[in-house]
Amino acid sequence: MTAHTMSELPPIRCGIAGLGTVGAAVVRLLQQEQHWLAERAGRAVVVTAVSARERNRERGVTLDAVAWEDNPQALATRDDVDVVVELMGGADGAAYDLVKAALLAGKSVVTANKALLAHHGVELAALAEQQQVMLTFEAAVAGAIPVVESFRRGLAANPIARMAGILNGTCNYILTTMERSHASFDDVLADAQAKGYAEADPSFDIDGVDTAHKLVLLAMIAFRARLGLQHVAMEGIRAVTPQDIAFAREFGYRIKLLGMARQLDNGISLSVAPALVALHEPMAQVGAAFNAISIEGAYAGRLFLEGLGAGGNATASSVVSDILAVSRGTLHGAPSELPFATAAQQLREIRVIPASEQEGRFYLRLRVLDQPGVLARIAETFAHADVSLKSVLQRSAEPDAPVDVVLMTHRARGESIARARDVLANASFSLQPPFVIRIEE
Amino acid sequence: MTAHTMSELPPIRCGIAGLGTVGAAVVRLLQQEQHWLAERAGRAVVVTAVSARERNRERGVTLDAVAWEDNPQALATRDDVDVVVELMGGADGAAYDLVKAALLAGKSVVTANKALLAHHGVELAALAEQQQVMLTFEAAVAGAIPVVESFRRGLAANPIARMAGILNGTCNYILTTMERSHASFDDVLADAQAKGYAEADPSFDIDGVDTAHKLVLLAMIAFRARLGLQHVAMEGIRAVTPQDIAFAREFGYRIKLLGMARQLDNGISLSVAPALVALHEPMAQVGAAFNAISIEGAYAGRLFLEGLGAGGNATASSVVSDILAVSRGTLHGAPSELPFATAAQQLREIRVIPASEQEGRFYLRLRVLDQPGVLARIAETFAHADVSLKSVLQRSAEPDAPVDVVLMTHRARGESIARARDVLANASFSLQPPFVIRIEE
Repeated sequence: MTAHTMSELPPIRCGIAGLGTVGAAVVRLLQQEQHWLAERAGRAVVVTAVSARERNRERGVTLDAVAWEDNPQALATRDDVDVVVELMGGADGAAYDLVKAALLAGKSVVTANKALLAHHGVELAALAEQQQVMLTFEAAVAGAIPVVESFRRGLAANPIARMAGILNGTCNYILTTMERSHASFDDVLADAQAKGYAEADPSFDIDGVDTAHKLVLLAMIAFRARLGLQHVAMEGIRAVTPQDIAFAREFGYRIKLLGMARQLDNGISLSVAPALVALHEPMAQVGAAFNAISIEGAYAGRLFLEGLGAGGNATASSVVSDILAVSRGTLHGAPSELPFATAAQQLREIRVIPASEQEGRFYLRLRVLDQPGVLARIAETFAHADVSLKSVLQRSAEPDAPVDVVLMTHRARGESIARARDVLANASFSLQPPFVIRIEE
Repeated sequence: MTAHTMSELPPIRCGIAGLGTVGAAVVRLLQQEQHWLAERAGRAVVVTAVSARERNRERGVTLDAVAWEDNPQALATRDDVDVVVELMGGADGAAYDLVKAALLAGKSVVTANKALLAHHGVELAALAEQQQVMLTFEAAVAGAIPVVESFRRGLAANPIARMAGILNGTCNYILTTMERSHASFDDVLADAQAKGYAEADPSFDIDGVDTAHKLVLLAMIAFRARLGLQHVAMEGIRAVTPQDIAFAREFGYRIKLLGMARQLDNGISLSVAPALVALHEPMAQVGAAFNAISIEGAYAGRLFLEGLGAGGNATASSVVSDILAVSRGTLHGAPSELPFATAAQQLREIRVIPASEQEGRFYLRLRVLDQPGVLARIAETFAHADVSLKSVLQRSAEPDAPVDVVLMTHRARGESIARARDVLANASFSLQPPFVIRIEE
């Protein structure tokens, strides 16, 4: 197909469901850059229909020439829609119904919905493959960073040894702000909520669920495995204190919430948890608004990708790049991209290794009564659990007052650490259960 | 096409021309990972024929079952070759002949040859489009980093404001080593040559030609423009001294050879030159063996990609990912990828702005005689050229001895700097032409 005949192609027509920050930004990008996009796509890219909850909200975009559907499902069956762009969000309900109906109707789907795909991705990918349409989701993970495509395409030749990502903007903002302001988690969260950087119900972000959704998507592609949220050991950032951040800093680390996946001898491990990242690593330098992923490929070696993780324009950049890919990918009938880079039926069942079986180095903070013999008891507990300590930091204020004891271990098994933690949690001198953070290596 | 029928597809058969470090690594990857790759591709990926200069060299790969061609051209017309993988290198000659012959014979081509594509990419892309085959070249730029694909796919919706890259491993190794060892450029180069990190004739690398080739390729995709080496203002690293590196460090910068492209009001600028990069920027932290690209998209915002820039495995990772893409992309006849993301005929003619018209901040090092009045004469010269100075550093040893005067300017036009430099080069107190480095902002 030459450029000449391409320019005579009919336009590719988008039906957009959801006109929040991202949806409005997508419409705006498609309108502002229509000339550029038409040249890139070899055909006009137009919005023919939209659907959102409130019709009369001011969104800074012109929708005069665009059909309005009160019910998003209607987009799936409109004759003037080639691609359904799902930007409503939510793991089930309307988003699931729309995407399924669109695929069944033979339309390609572009979505930014990580929750939907983490829960129903395999089913939807299989349906897209059966219907010979495309299902793309670059915007679902890490905003503007082309990481889905990097796994699907550029790293496709590589067995992946390891990946770690800062994938949630709210958590990265909170941790970064806590470090800068020395304020408590609760105060920074309340401030982030007031500024609109965190949801009224923030648990999805700060308890690690959102990061886990994104991790599951990347890991399915990277490891060619059928994975779900149930495979992810998940821990959020609520327990992180300004003291932890300061202690970590003294040891030469910064605390980041990481989504982590590792290929081990006998399976893979998937976790979301706060981690100590060495200050000299680029991952430690990732600013509040940014996401980043480091990847270790068997042949590619270490790769590091950093970019804006959220925001209307950054997300729209990925959504519209997917629309362009659908435009080309469906030119000749059956598309040349599989949603997970592997046929959905060929995703493997894979053993997921629990955290307890994994070795690592750990940071532990214990709040104890400052009494004679306490440090000896702590050291003894670790020795019994077969954990050797690398450094201990204790700053006493006055006798019998509560004091933080901070420890860094040498390499130890997760279950040994858990055993020591349980013993210490029940010790008479212990004022709080010990807080444990893995050190990222 | 379902997974079931895909697994019944015939193998995709590669003919590989060039069995140096990269070629041997590609064969090894294809052999070692054949199971993984077959699952990814939905079909076996096999090497059926190879060609290289020496038949009997030990390469650590088994070629018993593979046909040998003394003349690489023969790969283009073998019935048992679907994809020609060109890893010979060179802008013209055998590589050009092979790629052209392969495309004419209706075979897709995967190449790592930046020189070839920087010189003949538009012609070859047009031929690939006309023949409805694929021409992919992820490995031609930045080794394992999927940057070609990022521009072609993930950032396709973005007008690009700016990109800067460390794209040549030899230069990055030399500059990094000069900083660590305080040795001269010549000594570090000789050592790099002895270790095999630099070619016997190093000018291609250290004079910026290789970086310019890669920059041209990325810029053609990013700006949808027809560009060539003649558009790049090119300067290498021969003139950089350990003193420059130390002075830069004192000001808070590190010297890196950058390929730079900028969208300006009235055109684009393309340059390869040493640049001062602020120490806190991730670009300043890029280690000797790594490449990196920072990209500023109109919607995506700032993106930073870092990875191994060279080496057999890292390059093979990209070559084989391209082979997998060809395998899928040609499944249904006409492929869904264009070499430059835009039809070759639609690449624009674009105004390229000369460096003299560009504003910036600059570092200048002057070697002068330490005499009374010299500093005043220097300051006067800049004032006349309408350049205001931000900082001046001079360390005198003894009167009448040669001394380095280092200056950092405020924003100024390139031509003003050039004017001042020319005046100072001819001044009686001047012992060397002033050395100028742009400060990366």
